[in-house]
Amino acid sequence: MAIDRSAIRALQERVYQANISLRDHGLVTATFGNVSGIDRANGIVAIKPSGVPYDQLTPDKMVLVDFDYNVIEGDLNPSSDTKTHVMLYRAFGEIGGIVHTHSTYATAWAQAMKPLPCYGTTHADIFYGEVPCTEVMREEQIKRDYEEETAVQILETFQHYDYRQIPGVLVACHGPFSWGDTPSAAVYHGLMLETTAQMASIALGINPRLAPIKQSLADKHYLRKHGKNAYYGQNKEEKE
Amino acid sequence: MAIDRSAIRALQERVYQANISLRDHGLVTATFGNVSGIDRANGIVAIKPSGVPYDQLTPDKMVLVDFDYNVIEGDLNPSSDTKTHVMLYRAFGEIGGIVHTHSTYATAWAQAMKPLPCYGTTHADIFYGEVPCTEVMREEQIKRDYEEETAVQILETFQHYDYRQIPGVLVACHGPFSWGDTPSAAVYHGLMLETTAQMASIALGINPRLAPIKQSLADKHYLRKHGKNAYYGQNKEEKE
Amino acid sequence: MAIDRSAIRALQERVYQANISLRDHGLVTATFGNVSGIDRANGIVAIKPSGVPYDQLTPDKMVLVDFDYNVIEGDLNPSSDTKTHVMLYRAFGEIGGIVHTHSTYATAWAQAMKPLPCYGTTHADIFYGEVPCTEVMREEQIKRDYEEETAVQILETFQHYDYRQIPGVLVACHGPFSWGDTPSAAVYHGLMLETTAQMASIALGINPRLAPIKQSLADKHYLRKHGKNAYYGQNKEEKE
Amino acid sequence: MAIDRSAIRALQERVYQANISLRDHGLVTATFGNVSGIDRANGIVAIKPSGVPYDQLTPDKMVLVDFDYNVIEGDLNPSSDTKTHVMLYRAFGEIGGIVHTHSTYATAWAQAMKPLPCYGTTHADIFYGEVPCTEVMREEQIKRDYEEETAVQILETFQHYDYRQIPGVLVACHGPFSWGDTPSAAVYHGLMLETTAQMASIALGINPRLAPIKQSLADKHYLRKHGKNAYYGQNKEEKE
Repeated sequence: MAIDRSAIRALQERVYQANISLRDHGLVTATFGNVSGIDRANGIVAIKPSGVPYDQLTPDKMVLVDFDYNVIEGDLNPSSDTKTHVMLYRAFGEIGGIVHTHSTYATAWAQAMKPLPCYGTTHADIFYGEVPCTEVMREEQIKRDYEEETAVQILETFQHYDYRQIPGVLVACHGPFSWGDTPSAAVYHGLMLETTAQMASIALGINPRLAPIKQSLADKHYLRKHGKNAYYGQNKEEKE
Repeated sequence: MAIDRSAIRALQERVYQANISLRDHGLVTATFGNVSGIDRANGIVAIKPSGVPYDQLTPDKMVLVDFDYNVIEGDLNPSSDTKTHVMLYRAFGEIGGIVHTHSTYATAWAQAMKPLPCYGTTHADIFYGEVPCTEVMREEQIKRDYEEETAVQILETFQHYDYRQIPGVLVACHGPFSWGDTPSAAVYHGLMLETTAQMASIALGINPRLAPIKQSLADKHYLRKHGKNAYYGQNKEEKE
Repeated sequence: MAIDRSAIRALQERVYQANISLRDHGLVTATFGNVSGIDRANGIVAIKPSGVPYDQLTPDKMVLVDFDYNVIEGDLNPSSDTKTHVMLYRAFGEIGGIVHTHSTYATAWAQAMKPLPCYGTTHADIFYGEVPCTEVMREEQIKRDYEEETAVQILETFQHYDYRQIPGVLVACHGPFSWGDTPSAAVYHGLMLETTAQMASIALGINPRLAPIKQSLADKHYLRKHGKNAYYGQNKEEKE
Repeated sequence: MAIDRSAIRALQERVYQANISLRDHGLVTATFGNVSGIDRANGIVAIKPSGVPYDQLTPDKMVLVDFDYNVIEGDLNPSSDTKTHVMLYRAFGEIGGIVHTHSTYATAWAQAMKPLPCYGTTHADIFYGEVPCTEVMREEQIKRDYEEETAVQILETFQHYDYRQIPGVLVACHGPFSWGDTPSAAVYHGLMLETTAQMASIALGINPRLAPIKQSLADKHYLRKHGKNAYYGQNKEEKE
């Protein structure tokens, strides 16, 4: 099948813009952070190259890989997290973009090996319930392909959650991944994960015995912005 | 009654400027934040449109609604919090502007479901006593009109407080509202609520058994800036 | 005695620059912050006007007052804290500038009514021992002249400390004052008070039973930068 | 032996750029922070002058000293921490740059006199195990040459650690030092020490009984970026 080159260039541009936006939102420490996007018609993922500083990125440096992790163009190495991204695209059939960061507060929750509880409506507007934390990786997994096993951890966790309603996860001892319909939506969910992680950390300091909000309130807020009865924004397609 | 169009344009401009100022003070996360203003002579409220990014706002995009929530001009949807704003304008007859944000520390206190105690004179200069936190919304309220019920929660809370002396509130599990004589004053009170919420959070970390300041000191500070014997600023009208 | 006008203009310029620097260091919330300077030869204090936003300040707006609090030129009101400043200049004969802020962490310590312990050499480089916190103001003081009584609180506290070695104080339930040889040095000490207050707050979170550093280490660090045997910087006069 | 002047100028330029970068990363409070670099072929260390504000620095102001602490050119005093730097260069034969800061969170851990535990992969990517904290300096050491004894403290600590795998240390009651192959790498390690110290502080607030990550995971992450089997970045030489 011939690849649609203009579609691929547009994908690289979207992924590039999302990577820059990730940095501009303060979610990236040094080079710890990457965004990818997928063109499902062409079966191609575009992802940030590994270890390249943000100010040296350009759209055409976004590395193109297929679903078998092969680089299909260019001579830069893709992000070392590429296999994790690709496996999530294979399993989560409706997503169009993925973000991984070491953003400060979300990473601290991942280091604390705790799911992020839904303590308020800011959280409930985006995540329909707690943002889960994976199990710590098992010894035999660490010895296998580490980046594939990171995806395995996430997928095992999401046997009990709906990835369309909870567009993010904390990988224990590591940091957050988030996703969305587009690379830009994935960045937005990464930002909201960091923001709600910070609020939760402060709220817990004020009230150490704090419990999550009640389900009916979580329902109300999530469904006000999502699904067929949403009424937030200028039309039903708009989520931010 | 004919509407005074130049007064309405001036109102939109004030509300627009206050929304921009809200963002510039770092009080807005993504699009979580809105300012409204009222022209009581014309019975018109101007409010930020729902879900429109801050950098796409212009004065004429401020949506005009009447006291029955009808949009009286333009095709943008008003903020999803519009009913809350309008009900507060109906109940609090002396205010000219309202702000709602999810600013980090004030929201954390709201999530912790705790009133913000008056721990110091920074707080006492603006808020005459603790900033109250509403009750958590009851099941039957959530099923009714959510935004109206948010106002109901606030108004029930203010049966025990004077809205002119405490120009802000924490809505439990949600976030802060603030108000003032003008949209700009409401933004200022939102900023001070965030600032004092941060100070209180840190002070509580240093001294977990901290009690509010004594009443005589709160009186002194509040009355130094407010009321007929105020002596702060260049004249008695100036409060900031 | 004729006033030396060029000396006064130079004083206003120094005080203006120090006020701007205070804001640029992030030490000011809204208009909560002021710097003054003194010309002891002419017996004149220049101080920020009350409640004027920072971006409307100019050197000639710095209000000139004498030791009896009389405004000796211009029609702006001086800072409402002017009496506190003037009383400190009268009592602390070697200082040339005073700063008052509500900077976040230092104010939180003042709200917690705790002296700021010397937990490390950053503190010891500037403050020779803990930065004291005043007693809470007594009822009869609050009823008297509030700003004078704030100075009384500070001066009572400094009966047990040397203001030349500890150029700052926390006023209980209120916030920090700092001072120095010049307005600029007072700003620097205000910045270091905020910085060390933040470090102390975090350190206490990590180790809640933390004790101050031992005296010999405090001696070493303070005396490395201050006094006749100082060897830090390009010459003995330079302290920053 | 004739000194290679162009090599020395290049060293000063690298050290200057690294000092500016240190400030731009927000790691410096006032003038508390310095970077040095070494030219081992010529036996010369270039270091920031003592107490000179960052905006007055130029490459040629980087002070040149030899291994006996003699200033070999210029009339500025080198950083008061010069002896510490030089002793570390003598002991750690493979490093090319050293950084000392009072960055907020790393300094708070040093003030808390606690090693920084490896709570996650952000830490494990850079530091192979905990970042140690020295013992508090003993009385007889304080009386001797303070800056030399600071190095003695660090070197005693590193009898139990490999400086090539843990490029940083917390000096008890004082603050962090970091190092690397180049001045720029030392700055990067200083930034990562601050970042991981902040994450650790927050994680500990969320889970006060938090334990370090297991060794196998630390191995995996460290060795993914370091050593002969590294596969992160565009080639094996690249570490950031």
